[in-house]
Amino acid sequence: MQAEIITIGDEILIGQIIDTNSAWIAQQLNAIGIHVKQVSSIADNPADITVALMLASGRADIVVITGGLGPTKDDVTKQTLSAYFDCGLHLDPEVLAHVESIFQRSNRPMLEKNRRQADVLDKSEVLFNQVGTAPGMWVEHQHKRYIIMPGVPFEMKHVMQERVLPRLRQLSGRTPLWHHTVLTGGLGESFLAEKIADIEAALPPHIRLAYLPKPGIVRLRLTATGDALETLKTETATISQKIKERIGDHFLADEDTTLEVLIRDLMKQQKLVLATAESCTGGNIARLITSLPGSSSMFEGGAVTYSNAMKMKLLSVKRDTLDTHGAVSEETVREMAARAQAYFNVDYAIAVSGIAGPDGGTPEKPVGLVWIAVAGKKSVIARKHVFGQDRAINIERSSIAALLMLWRLLTAELDERARP
Amino acid sequence: MQAEIITIGDEILIGQIIDTNSAWIAQQLNAIGIHVKQVSSIADNPADITVALMLASGRADIVVITGGLGPTKDDVTKQTLSAYFDCGLHLDPEVLAHVESIFQRSNRPMLEKNRRQADVLDKSEVLFNQVGTAPGMWVEHQHKRYIIMPGVPFEMKHVMQERVLPRLRQLSGRTPLWHHTVLTGGLGESFLAEKIADIEAALPPHIRLAYLPKPGIVRLRLTATGDALETLKTETATISQKIKERIGDHFLADEDTTLEVLIRDLMKQQKLVLATAESCTGGNIARLITSLPGSSSMFEGGAVTYSNAMKMKLLSVKRDTLDTHGAVSEETVREMAARAQAYFNVDYAIAVSGIAGPDGGTPEKPVGLVWIAVAGKKSVIARKHVFGQDRAINIERSSIAALLMLWRLLTAELDERARP
Repeated sequence: MQAEIITIGDEILIGQIIDTNSAWIAQQLNAIGIHVKQVSSIADNPADITVALMLASGRADIVVITGGLGPTKDDVTKQTLSAYFDCGLHLDPEVLAHVESIFQRSNRPMLEKNRRQADVLDKSEVLFNQVGTAPGMWVEHQHKRYIIMPGVPFEMKHVMQERVLPRLRQLSGRTPLWHHTVLTGGLGESFLAEKIADIEAALPPHIRLAYLPKPGIVRLRLTATGDALETLKTETATISQKIKERIGDHFLADEDTTLEVLIRDLMKQQKLVLATAESCTGGNIARLITSLPGSSSMFEGGAVTYSNAMKMKLLSVKRDTLDTHGAVSEETVREMAARAQAYFNVDYAIAVSGIAGPDGGTPEKPVGLVWIAVAGKKSVIARKHVFGQDRAINIERSSIAALLMLWRLLTAELDERARP
Repeated sequence: MQAEIITIGDEILIGQIIDTNSAWIAQQLNAIGIHVKQVSSIADNPADITVALMLASGRADIVVITGGLGPTKDDVTKQTLSAYFDCGLHLDPEVLAHVESIFQRSNRPMLEKNRRQADVLDKSEVLFNQVGTAPGMWVEHQHKRYIIMPGVPFEMKHVMQERVLPRLRQLSGRTPLWHHTVLTGGLGESFLAEKIADIEAALPPHIRLAYLPKPGIVRLRLTATGDALETLKTETATISQKIKERIGDHFLADEDTTLEVLIRDLMKQQKLVLATAESCTGGNIARLITSLPGSSSMFEGGAVTYSNAMKMKLLSVKRDTLDTHGAVSEETVREMAARAQAYFNVDYAIAVSGIAGPDGGTPEKPVGLVWIAVAGKKSVIARKHVFGQDRAINIERSSIAALLMLWRLLTAELDERARP
């Protein structure tokens, strides 16, 4: 069973808002075995709406429409839908009572345009919107289903969850579909693809593999369609296991997660505590960790030592080390990591020093050069990275590389400890 | 002149990623007078790509395509484009040399599929991608222009800014259009709208006002269309001036910028230096500042003191203060700011302590309570904020509120110094 999503509203086409609704709706539909064929964003304009409806209903069984139902612009959308479905509009008394109660509660005067929010298509069943004034509508027309919802994200989600999904789950003809995503790190997209090329080539036709790369990280998504959901789960789990055996410790997690979450969970579980000493990443690693709920029990604190003076004062890096080897060097990051570990009195410490750019590079130490060290229970490891010219990307890649080094050292030391 | 945007990739249709590229591209096109008629997101599938290209080129003069060019899936997209434009593919030696240099620099082996990234359409002009391996392409075909770009956001932005926009600005047939954006802070969207309601109501029909809110910040964008660009510039500048007079020091800048940039520029110009002491924001303020090129000359460093132990050890907050008033209190943030200023030996210091949530709240100190202090040349100011329940938004709002307090104190102290 195929669906299409149409979002109506100029604000997306002038770039004023990012369309987050479509991704959310697509997730919900995919989860119940309804495949999304296309997403179209169009203007508040009768001709555009009509053409989009015609094309979408030609390709899909279900057309999901959001937006264009607010009090300042629902005229155009509803009139256009009324013409398209060849039916009139009528005032729904239950919706009107609800709209009136909202205005009474907030003590605002109710205008004619607010009353008209209660107009619904004659051919529709109302999808009652408890949390806003614009009702949703469900229309069956020429063997296709149309689901019309407001564009305000929390109103749309409410209508979708409470009214639409329960009905869609009743429909027959949905294809069971299963996504299994794994997290890999430290292998570039194409190198990873090469490593597992034979596994990918041997996939049965009903299972597809997609690469979702971010700096330093690639998620692999297996999508399976078939008759029996349980079979699909078993099949994708088997393939995931094969990939794991092939790529070894580049396989980080058998689920759709992030490196920060893996680190937080493992450190909490093992009652280990982390600190950071950041130069070129400027607090970004601390931010990634502390953005997670519950991080306070495994994160003690961090130092952002942007200047050499601060590297010496706060982290006691020796002047001699900085003079002889420079701020961006193996010696300096090793000292930073070891000193941060001692100073913050923690189990693990990350240190990063590099040249993020665009200025500050030299022929010997170009923009993009980054040294990272991690101090663990038993050793301090350090590694040089050479990234590119873009400041924002250098900061992001350095942060992910540092977290990946921490993850490797953590799991290696825990493995070792676990051995008899 | 009309454009359409096509994004290629299953990940949008299954809801795994949110399409942020389209909004950004639409903004850029609108800014130079090119109107976006529709955005379509489609699968990595030859038939879907072909139909989408046919329909879009029937409606628009320019078709912008992103995605589908990564090393693991460029085959489908490039082969489909090659058939659609009825031309072959050839290896571009300049692109190949660039791809090779990227692999050499990072010491990774180069594979056949990486080489194939250098294949370009015979009919295309290459839009050289300095920051990645997938080149963009510009094709003119049957009186329409097609712009093909990689889908990775930073690569797309690079190609768009460096290669595409300069060419599009040369095209005739664009409607003169002018955007004038101002930055305001500390007034909520609806309160701001109320304050300038009469100015908005008196706008001539060819000038529109849009509110672009973010936590703590609202940008106001005036969009003017007409025949003479210079007239539009004068008209919008006059309206901006009226808004400035109305909202006083909530008017932060007469341009589309950020608070971090304003602070960096003013502090650099005045040779002032900043440090941060962060608890609940976890390094996010330091990150916002250090994400800017040139911040090293005005940012000395920061402390992320997540635990009470670290507040005492690193910032010498008195145990008595923490015991009597708690970590989230006016007394604690005042000490944090004053001690950070002294310890880092800087002109200004920001301190933040709060309960970001979801846990850690009490009836007296609920989730969302945040104390912020700024130590300046002459005084330490402190303020209590009560935000909401969402951790990510609390961190963002706290960060912006802290920067806004810093900006206010900075400009006030500089004004005072400038007086005779």
